[in-house]
Amino acid sequence: MKATVHVMLKQGVLDPQGEAVRHALGTLGFDGVEGVRQGKIIELDLAGEDRDAAQDQVTRMCEKLLANTVIESYRIEIA
Amino acid sequence: MKATVHVMLKQGVLDPQGEAVRHALGTLGFDGVEGVRQGKIIELDLAGEDRDAAQDQVTRMCEKLLANTVIESYRIEIA
Repeated sequence: MKATVHVMLKQGVLDPQGEAVRHALGTLGFDGVEGVRQGKIIELDLAGEDRDAAQDQVTRMCEKLLANTVIESYRIEIA
Repeated sequence: MKATVHVMLKQGVLDPQGEAVRHALGTLGFDGVEGVRQGKIIELDLAGEDRDAAQDQVTRMCEKLLANTVIESYRIEIA
């Protein structure tokens, strides 16, 4: 079973990486870029077929390791 | 208009970051994790309303800056 986790900085948290990308895009001549935010995608191949158990396990993984829940929010998709 | 770019390592390319996460999850007691791959999400706020022009512009951004097309593949969503 495959689980995908999207981790993004929470609204209001400064995103220096996103700002750097926005600046670089401007330097390369791409105009009209009003904002850039960068996050992580983590794809997990999990043993087993129980979707609820997988959702629970991946939530615990996010809370413990995959996301810094002070400044980041996460979204889990179980495929 | 908002564009979202998903950048992942191509199949077959070694993912040391994903391996490190897999190892750490195992150390934390999460079993059944057979594989982990990590990539980037880039959310772009773009001026203008022309979806085709945005698709074209973001493709050029990916080719030039956002993705290393030798080892990474990218997927663009225009919302």
